[in-house]
This record gives sequence, structure tokens and C-alpha cells, in this order.
Amino acid sequence: MLLADGLVLMADTRTNAGVDNISTYRKLHVFDTDAYSVVIASAGSLSTTQEALSLLGEGVLNPDSGELETLGTAPNMFRAAQMIGRALHKARADVGSVLEGETQVSADVTFLVGGRIGGERLRLFLIYGPGNFIECGADTPYYQIGETKYGKPILDRQLRCDTPIAEAMKIGLISFNSTMRSNLAVGMPIDLAVLRPVERGIAVQHRITAQDPYWQSLDELWSNALRQAQAAIPPPPYFGG
Amino acid sequence: MLLADGLVLMADTRTNAGVDNISTYRKLHVFDTDAYSVVIASAGSLSTTQEALSLLGEGVLNPDSGELETLGTAPNMFRAAQMIGRALHKARADVGSVLEGETQVSADVTFLVGGRIGGERLRLFLIYGPGNFIECGADTPYYQIGETKYGKPILDRQLRCDTPIAEAMKIGLISFNSTMRSNLAVGMPIDLAVLRPVERGIAVQHRITAQDPYWQSLDELWSNALRQAQAAIPPPPYFGG
Repeated sequence: MLLADGLVLMADTRTNAGVDNISTYRKLHVFDTDAYSVVIASAGSLSTTQEALSLLGEGVLNPDSGELETLGTAPNMFRAAQMIGRALHKARADVGSVLEGETQVSADVTFLVGGRIGGERLRLFLIYGPGNFIECGADTPYYQIGETKYGKPILDRQLRCDTPIAEAMKIGLISFNSTMRSNLAVGMPIDLAVLRPVERGIAVQHRITAQDPYWQSLDELWSNALRQAQAAIPPPPYFGG
Repeated sequence: MLLADGLVLMADTRTNAGVDNISTYRKLHVFDTDAYSVVIASAGSLSTTQEALSLLGEGVLNPDSGELETLGTAPNMFRAAQMIGRALHKARADVGSVLEGETQVSADVTFLVGGRIGGERLRLFLIYGPGNFIECGADTPYYQIGETKYGKPILDRQLRCDTPIAEAMKIGLISFNSTMRSNLAVGMPIDLAVLRPVERGIAVQHRITAQDPYWQSLDELWSNALRQAQAAIPPPPYFGG
């Protein structure tokens, strides 16, 4: 979520190779130095993701300059997104060349990349498997990757560019809560990172577990409120008589 | 939705061949005589659906008996589901043999088939493209086909086998309302059919348009209630300080 009030990135930690093989892996990757604060959220193949992130550490070849680039050499977020796109494209090609010939498993991965480099404004990109990307703007101030549909209506209803950051975080948690009700592929804990427009670095970095008292009260308050909201709507007038 | 209180079937009417070509087609098909009351909701290829429904009218070959079967010859809902499954399988094969060789368009279709034959109890089946099917039971008293994910959390939260039928209809409309917020492939009007456990025939048959006052008030009441519910949840405590 990219708001006037800051940038919020959230990711669950459920990874699965079928419903009989689920694990917990961090999907929110934080790169924070004096020079840059970049957070990458990943969805899709875990092996492609790990290779792409390793490439970022080792340096990604820029075919135009012939040089190896890293987050440390990127002059701004746009160039960082291009470089991360190249790393993702290469990792997907490497993993996919094996996977897609021999199995039905997809090597596809999508990244959200948010943050700032130097004194730049906060920016948020959605990077697709082939390495192409789009940038988040004020009209629709959020991106989702992975299991996007269950939790999308609440974001479309409630989130605006001028939503205060604590409200936005609440809306994001409600969206995850709804998704987890209906899909086993999304599970606790949730990792959270917040960057603010002025303050440098990562303002909030937190892991919310299933036992977290705020998460539990949000789950209960939201469920009760939905029940009350439903009860407050009069019955449909379509029964004739 | 198959409840102790009755059977509710709902379908939107949006058909699309890409976002630049949308139309309105009835997707809730009612077959009501003194001998049976059967409602079929369809999702997927319109041409496969139309061929399968035409086959139902003309009679579907039963390979075991060598006879043509229709809803009029089916002794119960299970046999009707088998016959409708055969019609769907044949239509999908006919349409698919052309489509899937020459285009990227899928010929796949899913049906919901609910109702009763003779004095039987109300039953609800989900029939897949190959013609296989499953029957709805009390543990999860609903099926969805088509764009299922957006509207699933509200059904999972609120719908129980003992939910009164007017409440169930309200929940169904909220589910459609949420889906339409986020997906252009689902659109008004909504067709509605209700069957009751004792009373024979179709108890309610109605088309809800976008201008329907109840639909408009539900949309407004639900949106407002969600905003209030969100406001009533305290802010997340993850900002430190």
C-alpha cells in the first residue's frame, strides 16, 4: 500500500507444495542500509525466489553496460526495479527450464518492490516473472500478489491514497484475515514493514503471530461486526405474499 | 445454497469475450413442471452451455440402456445429474474439439443443478466439465461456480445449514455485491430462484436489477457498516514509541 502517509508492505509466510506439504518461509525481504531501504515481497515458486534474491546479492549483469549491478549501485528505485526484474527473469528461466520440462510445477514468481534509494520519494513496483514491471499510483494505491481475490473487495472499498497509515495497516490485516478464512494457501504469521515519507530507514518491522492479541481481537471484532451488519440489513422483499 | 429451510440459487448475467465485449445472458435456467422443479446455473463457455441445454431438451443418450433421457424420464435428482453430466461432457467435447485446436478459448463449463423430482427432498449438485459431479451436504451448505474467490469469505463466515432462507439470500447478495466491486466479469442483474422443503414448484423467481431499491439499500448499508466496523477496531499497536 503506497499512501501519502507512507508505504506498508505485508506478507504471509505460508509456502506449500500441495496441501500435504506446507511450511513457513519468510516472504518479506528487507534490505536496509544508510543508502537505501528496499522491501521485496514475493509470491510463487520458492526456488525461483531464492535464486533471484541470491543473484541480487551477487550482482545482476546489466547487458547494456556489461557491469554487475546490486541495490548498492542502483541510483534510484526505477533502476533498482529494472535490475530486480532482470534477476527475476534469469532465475525464472533457470528454474523453469528444468521444472517446466519435467514437472507440472510453475517456476513463475511475482515481486512487490517498495522503498527508497537515497533521498528519493517512496515508490512501489509490481514486477512480473518476465521482468517487466508497473508502478503504483494514487488512483489505486495498492498492489496484491499471490492469492489476491479473496481480500480484494475490502481494499477496493476502503483504501484511498489519503488513508492514514494505521488505518491502512488495519485494512490490510482485515484483507489477510478474510483470505485466511477461505484459503489454506495463506497462513500466519504475517510479516509487516512500514516506511514513512520523511523519516529514513524502516519505521516498523514486525512479525504478527496467530497468538498476537491485536490479531486475535481484530479477528473477533471483525467477525462480530459483519454479523451485526448483516443483521441490520432488512430481509429481501422477494418472497411475495 | 442448500439449507434446512430451502434451496436458493443465484446467478449474475454478465457474459464476456474479453473486457471489450460484454453482454447480458441469463445463466439461471429454470425447468418447472408438475413432475419436477430443476434449476441449472452455468459458468464458463456460453456456446458449450447452450449446446448442453439444447441436448437436455432433445434427449441425452444413456450408453447403458441405449435410450434417450430427459428431465421428464429421470426418476430422481441423482439420475438427472448423471444425465446432465453426460450432456455437458458431450457439448464440451463438441465445442472443445474446434475451439481448443484453433483458439486459446476454453470450452469448459461448470453447472450447479438444484431442485427435486417428484416427492424427493431438495438436492444440489455441482457438475464439472467432464460430467462428474459432487453433492452438497450440511457441513458446507453452498457451492459457487465461476468467479468464486471474491465472495467466498462472507459465505464461509456467515452461512450455516440452519441459516433461515431470507438471511441466506441476504448473504448471497452481499457475496455478489463484494465480487462486483472487484471484478468486471460479474455484473447485474442477478437472477434468483428459491425452492422450499414442503411447497412444490419454484417458491420465488425474480430478477434483481441494478436499480432495485433493496439491492441499492443493501449496497449502501453494507458499505457503511464495513466502514463503521473498521473504525471500531483500535489502531494496530505496531508503531512502537
